[in-house]
This record gives sequence, structure tokens and C-alpha cells, in this order.
Amino acid sequence: MNDILVGGQWRPANSTGSINAVDPRSGQTLDGDFPISNWDDCAAALEAAAQIVPALEAASPAQIALFLRTYAGNLDANSEAICAAAEKESGLPMPTRLQKVEMPRATRQLRLAADAAESEVWRNPIVDADINLASCRGPIGPVLVIGPNNFPLAFNAIAGSDFASAIAAGNPVIAKAHPSHPLTTKLMAEQAVAALATAKLPAATVQMLYHMAPEDGLRMVKSREIAAVGFTGSRTAGVALKAAADECGKPIYLEMSSVNPVFFLPSLFEQRSTDEIITELSGSCLLAAGQFCTCPNLFVLLDNEQGQQVVDGVKAQFEEQTPTVLLSGAVLGGLESAAAMLQEKGAELLAGGKPSDEEGIRFQNTLFKVTGDEFLADTDAFQTEGFGPLSLGVLAKDLDQFYAIAESIEGSLTGSVYGSAADPAAKELVSRLRRRVGRVIQNKMPTGVAVSPAMNHGGPFPATGHPGFTSVGMPTSIGRFTKLDCYDNMEDALKPDCLK
Amino acid sequence: MNDILVGGQWRPANSTGSINAVDPRSGQTLDGDFPISNWDDCAAALEAAAQIVPALEAASPAQIALFLRTYAGNLDANSEAICAAAEKESGLPMPTRLQKVEMPRATRQLRLAADAAESEVWRNPIVDADINLASCRGPIGPVLVIGPNNFPLAFNAIAGSDFASAIAAGNPVIAKAHPSHPLTTKLMAEQAVAALATAKLPAATVQMLYHMAPEDGLRMVKSREIAAVGFTGSRTAGVALKAAADECGKPIYLEMSSVNPVFFLPSLFEQRSTDEIITELSGSCLLAAGQFCTCPNLFVLLDNEQGQQVVDGVKAQFEEQTPTVLLSGAVLGGLESAAAMLQEKGAELLAGGKPSDEEGIRFQNTLFKVTGDEFLADTDAFQTEGFGPLSLGVLAKDLDQFYAIAESIEGSLTGSVYGSAADPAAKELVSRLRRRVGRVIQNKMPTGVAVSPAMNHGGPFPATGHPGFTSVGMPTSIGRFTKLDCYDNMEDALKPDCLK
Repeated sequence: MNDILVGGQWRPANSTGSINAVDPRSGQTLDGDFPISNWDDCAAALEAAAQIVPALEAASPAQIALFLRTYAGNLDANSEAICAAAEKESGLPMPTRLQKVEMPRATRQLRLAADAAESEVWRNPIVDADINLASCRGPIGPVLVIGPNNFPLAFNAIAGSDFASAIAAGNPVIAKAHPSHPLTTKLMAEQAVAALATAKLPAATVQMLYHMAPEDGLRMVKSREIAAVGFTGSRTAGVALKAAADECGKPIYLEMSSVNPVFFLPSLFEQRSTDEIITELSGSCLLAAGQFCTCPNLFVLLDNEQGQQVVDGVKAQFEEQTPTVLLSGAVLGGLESAAAMLQEKGAELLAGGKPSDEEGIRFQNTLFKVTGDEFLADTDAFQTEGFGPLSLGVLAKDLDQFYAIAESIEGSLTGSVYGSAADPAAKELVSRLRRRVGRVIQNKMPTGVAVSPAMNHGGPFPATGHPGFTSVGMPTSIGRFTKLDCYDNMEDALKPDCLK
Repeated sequence: MNDILVGGQWRPANSTGSINAVDPRSGQTLDGDFPISNWDDCAAALEAAAQIVPALEAASPAQIALFLRTYAGNLDANSEAICAAAEKESGLPMPTRLQKVEMPRATRQLRLAADAAESEVWRNPIVDADINLASCRGPIGPVLVIGPNNFPLAFNAIAGSDFASAIAAGNPVIAKAHPSHPLTTKLMAEQAVAALATAKLPAATVQMLYHMAPEDGLRMVKSREIAAVGFTGSRTAGVALKAAADECGKPIYLEMSSVNPVFFLPSLFEQRSTDEIITELSGSCLLAAGQFCTCPNLFVLLDNEQGQQVVDGVKAQFEEQTPTVLLSGAVLGGLESAAAMLQEKGAELLAGGKPSDEEGIRFQNTLFKVTGDEFLADTDAFQTEGFGPLSLGVLAKDLDQFYAIAESIEGSLTGSVYGSAADPAAKELVSRLRRRVGRVIQNKMPTGVAVSPAMNHGGPFPATGHPGFTSVGMPTSIGRFTKLDCYDNMEDALKPDCLK
């Protein structure tokens, strides 16, 4: 049984059982038992985090930055071993995705967080010298980070943006590994531990548990020691965690489900061929087997010749391309449910619809179609995210239906409009989508989330829990794990350096 | 029956009953029936707010600013009539408090909001030109504002900081009057209507209902049309509203209960006399009959000669000063409950403890005492806010008990430390209080919330619902009623002006 990382030590868990990862390419269980911690482990991690809060607050910005940079360097230096583990545990291709895209993204985020920590740009000091009143952002306290299945490196609970943001603001982190990739998470955690020593930060600044019973997870969220929570994953789990956090009035930052609608204005086809659009759309839908949070699960076209051509072309692409290996059996199960629900609700199945016969965990590339009338008659059902290679095309009868569909969108991470600003319908759609999504995109697919200070990877519920925050983009994403502090009539010696 | 303000019109309510205000100075019911709206009124207001969202988004920053400035000017010009109504409905002194303090505070906030709206400083644009990615804050959508009883002008749902902040960001507001001061709210609403016409903003930008059944209030919070909620009031009502908002993943900004602890370090008395401290502390406790959100309901001293002197002196002051008229019978009832609970829990009653015999709605100035051991044995009970002239003194046995008490504080708006930075205990206390409160204060009482950009009038739950936001202080307070918007690959014509 593998050790957990608690209080700065790798030590045996008080476990109630164990998990094993599965190689989704073969469906085979991998070697290595990872413990399901019981409450004693959770309580020990909480206590250790609470104990080092003062020491971590007293650490210098340079030390935090040194930790983040050293950790990034350690990850780079050990990229091959970590990516090899991640490939086995996720089925994601090692060179093209894990080594060349995800690991560089993870280490870049850590380094950008280091820059923000060092410059303290996240503190946003405001000084009213006339009345000796000053405010700034300060650390919020211990943060529980729960990572997703779909980015084993760049969104890992112990290396992703939630982690980097929380650490940059001087908060201890308790990372809960995703049960799909425990070894990957362990290998990363080892590099974090080494970097903490280099930076001389408290050893319990970073802790890691592999797994725990759901009720223990909720109890951790509610515990007094935890000040905030970062979660990326399913809507079911996210809503349960949110209810626990809300009960205590505690910030929780969620990234859950998102259908990422794409609207193709009829005027678009005066400039662009349907073939180009078919390639672009189906490529985005099937990228990484549709397992991006920003995968276009919904697209809207006018029910005319071009609209039908695009739907037919996407269907052909979906059928032609070999289904990609999924991340896990849980993803497969979710796709089966979503497909069954859409069929039950009357959506027309154009391609796929069931598990694939190929080796490993796969689902057929699946395309459904409804009319605008059908969509608008049950906007809830037809916005159910099928996480994976499943999309729904809507053929609307007029632009008014485009607008009505845009207005009906539940909170989503993104909304795309294909068409020119010269078409007045573009402005109408952008305006409606702005209210419903975090990032409005023109003439571009939503997959692809640039690591940029201008990024918003967020949006209204149920995409996230609050439309004012982003999980990607330094330094804005750091703000989630801060509280607003104010110092009134105070001697400089008692204020943080940024207010002196 | 008075008309409600819905859809830009004063019109009769669909009422299920009516309320009357009470003059707390005499306990007499005032003339004027104000309707309790049924759901039809609520639904009509929601629909009107949703309909004008696009028009309000299209309004220029100059128009929003013109509205806010004109409204402020109208309030100034009609200050006498409004303050006379507020005096009758709240019992607060007209010249010293309402005319000279509250109305200027209200109009100043509106003018500061106008400045922020005009400059668009609240938008915080971030542009990544290399990849044509840009983000900024945008309006969140219709906001429901529910105001408190204790500031009929400066925190009124139709004129306070929640209102000004929501409007500055271009959001329609539905204001729910506090049932204690319906006429005051009506008179202010009339000035808002006139100002909307001057600024040529949509007439439904500002709507006002006097009252509704609690279940209809919760239904409004949950309705799709409402994007965010601002509430100032009791913890019971706030927690119920929060549960409704949380269920839909909707931001709600609450200002609820706060005990505002004040710690007097033993070393303080080397510089300051106990007499000075007694005057300062009792003055703050009894200011406006203790009905400030930042009233010190809890103070902590060492159990030594000076500590006992201060407690004895505060007791003498509490007994000597005539109890001030309270805002309402509800405040009186809350004080009776709090006093009974504290006695039941074993706190020693030193002064007051029951309703006063003087004319009008009054409660005796009430002081309780516990030891540090007693406090730490039941930190929940001894932090129950008695909203009004009720405070609890704690005599601790050593500095470690000071620290333990500071760590046990539930989220509070403020925490004060009396003592010098030269005393190492000051740093220890400031560090602990920073984690538990929104504003840490040195050598000053918490009552007094400067309207300053550096102010934080906020704090962890249950003082508010999220420790990252302030309800006072432009432009920061505006951020509560915004969402983060991002424009990806977009032609300038489709972006807001601040990103072009």
C-alpha cells in the first residue's frame, strides 16, 4: 500500500480500503494499491494545515516563489517518469499530449504563479493615507483542492491552477488526488516535497490524500480548518460539495458541467465553405475524445441547405474517425446515460450511440440532432452535458430561435458565434451569450484555453459556482483564494509589507 | 393604500395585506397603509427588470453617472421631507443623525458610484493583444436589494451602497423596502424615478416593493431573472435567503451578524487611563443604542485590577445613561432573547437586562460578564449578537486566553486591538484577528465605517457570505454585482468600449 503525504511526512494511511488505477487503453487494472483514507487521516491533514498557517503567512514572497519555481523545475526534470505514469493511468498520448502540451502548461502555470507571488500583484493594496486606512488581499487559509480526471498534469490537484493559485497567496493546500491517476499524483507530490525543502517552507504546506469516503470529503469541506475549496469535476459531486461549503458560508470554486454552444450564423456561409466548418467543428468535438471542459456539446445552425450539409458532414466525420480511448469507465457510463436520455427525449441519433467494439474503454463518436422547436420545448434535457465524444446539433427555423436558444443556455464556460460583426445577428447573439457564459468567442472553437492573464475559464452556474471568478489566468485566478483584509488606524509594524 | 413602483409606473399593488410603520419613540402606529405584494407583483417586477437589461447595457457610462448624480441631488434637495419621515419611522434624531450624517453619506456614496460608473474603473480591462483575448467586468443582471432597519437612508435598499454599486455596473435593481420605514423608502424612490427620466434610462431600471410574504421573497431570489442579491439584516433571514440563492448557484452578498470583539492588552494601561477607556468603550457600545453593525458586543480584558476597573466603569456608564429609543419592537424582542440566553448560559448580569420603563421602545443598557474559561467553554453561545445596547465583557486569565478567544471568533466585520505595536502580544492578536474578521483596528472603536476606497465592510461568515467582498468602499463594492466577461478572437465592434 502506498503512503499518504500528511504533515510533511510520507506515512502509512489509516485506510478503509484501497483503489487501483486502470489503464483505459486495455481496461487492465494497474499495479499499486493506493489507500482510501479514513477520517483520522483527514483530521491529521486538517490539523497539520491549520498549525502551519502562521509560519506560512510569515514566509516571504521570495520563498513562495522559490517553491513554485523549484517545483516546476523538478517536474520538468522528472517529466518522463511522470508522463509515463500519466499515460498508463489516463490513456492520453504521452509525447503529443502529456509531454509536449500538458506538462509545459502545468509548469508554466506554476512559474506564472511564482511571478505573481513574488511581485505580490495579487494583493491589490489600496491606501487612504488621510485616515490611515488600508486594505489588501491576504491569504484565506487552508485550501482543499480536488482535481479532475481529464488533465492529469495541468489540472492535477497538486499541480494545477487551483493549487498554484492557492499557494501563491500563501495558503496551505490539501490535495485530493483523482482516483484515476494516483501514481501520477504521487510522483508529482514527491517533487513538491523536495521543492518545499529547498524553499524552506513548512513541510505541511502541501499535503496529499489519494481518496476518502464521500462523507469524509464533505466533512473536510465543512471542517473549521478549511477556509476554501477548489473543485473540478462532475456536476453531481460538485453540487454536493457546494452544499456542504454553502452551509458554512465558505467559498468553494467549482468547475463543473458546460455545453459550450456554438452558433453558426447563416451569413457565415457567404465567406466560409461548409467543408471547412465541418472539419473545424468535428475536430473540436472529438479532440481528446471530447473530454475537454470546453468541448462543443451543442451547435446551432439554420435549417437550410448549408445547415443540413454541416450536420451531414459532421455525421460523416464522426463515423469515419476511430473512437479515441476514454479516460475511464465512469466517462463511458456517463455517455451511455446521456445518449439514452437524449434518445428518450426524442433527439434523432445520427451517429454512434453506444460503446465501441475496439480495444480499451471507448464510446462511439455520437451525434444527435433536434429541431429548434424541439430544443426550446425542453431546454434542460437538451443541455445535459454528455462528457466525451457526444454532441447535439440543433437546426433552428430562424434567427429568433437562435436568440431564444442563446437565452435559454444554462451557465456555460464558453459560447461561440461564427459570423461577421457586419451581420447584426452577431451582435444580438454576443450580447445574449455574454450574460450566460464566461468567454464569448468569435469564429473559433472553444477547445483551447490559453494560459493568459486575459483568460476567463469560468461562467455562471452550473459551469461554476460564481460568475465572477476564473480558474485559469494569473494573477486573477489567485483572487479566489484570498480574503479582503483591512487595517484601520494601525501602526506600520503591524501591517503587511505591501501596505507600509 | 400606497402604490408600488413596478415597470416604471406607480401602480396599485396586488396585495395580500398591508403594513404600517410604527414611531418607536411613542410606540404609535403611523398613518399610511403600505401593501404586502403577492406573487403577481413580484413576477411583474422580475419581468420588467429582465426586459430592460439590453437597454440598460446599451446605456452610456455618462447616462448611468448622470442618473446617480441627479438622484443624489434630488435627495439633497428633498432632504428635509425625507429625513422627517425617517425620523418618525426610525426614531433616529433628525438633525444630528439623519440630516447631518446619514443623508450626506447616502448622497456621497451615490456620487462616488457615479464617478466609478463614468470612469468605468470597475471594469478592470485586461487585454492580451497577441492572441486577441480580452476580459473585463460586465453587468451581472437584475439585482434584488433587501435593506436593513438600522440605516433608513445610507443603507436603504433604494439608495445605499448595494443599490449604488449594482446601478453603477449597469444592473436593474428591484429594491425591497424595510417594513420599518416604508414612507422614507417611497419618498426616496420618487426621487429615483425623476432622476431616471433626467438621465433617459429605462424607467424600470429602479423598481420598489414594500413587502411580500417570506416565501415570495425566496421565490424571487431563486427566479431565473434575478442574477444576484444584496441583503443587510438579521442572520436568520440572511441564512434563509442564502440557502435559496446557493441552491441556484447565484451570488448573494449578505451583511448579517457580527460581534466586533475589542481586545485591551494589559500593557495598554501603562499609557492610557482606565477612565479614558471606559468612556471610549461605553460610548461605542451605546452609540445609536448599539444598533450599528459594528457595535462592540464583546470586549476582552485581563482579569486584573485595570480589567475589573474597566468592567465596573462600563457598568456605571451603562446604568447612568438613559436608554435610547430602539428602531423597532423586533429589536427589543431580539434583545430580550439574547439576554435570556446569556443568563441561562451562566453569564453574570451586571447592568440592565430588560425593557426600559421610559416612553417608547427601549431596552436597558445591558452588560454581562464572563471569565475567559467560561467564554472558551461555550464560544458559540457567548458570540450570539445581541443587536442593540448589550455587550459582554470577558475577563481572561492570561494572554493565551486572549489568543484562544481571538481564534474562536466567528467571522466578524471588525476586530480591535488596544495596545502598542511595541507589545509583542499586539502582533499575535492582529494576526489571529485578520483571519477571522474583515477589518482589524488598532486603538480605535469599530463603530465608524469610513466611506473610503480602502474600507472593508465585510468579513467571513456569518458576518457576510464570502470573505472576499466589501459592501462599503467604491469602486471595490461594485465588483459584487459584476461577472467576469471574456472576449476571444473577437472583432472590436462586438466588444465593450473599454476593450477596444
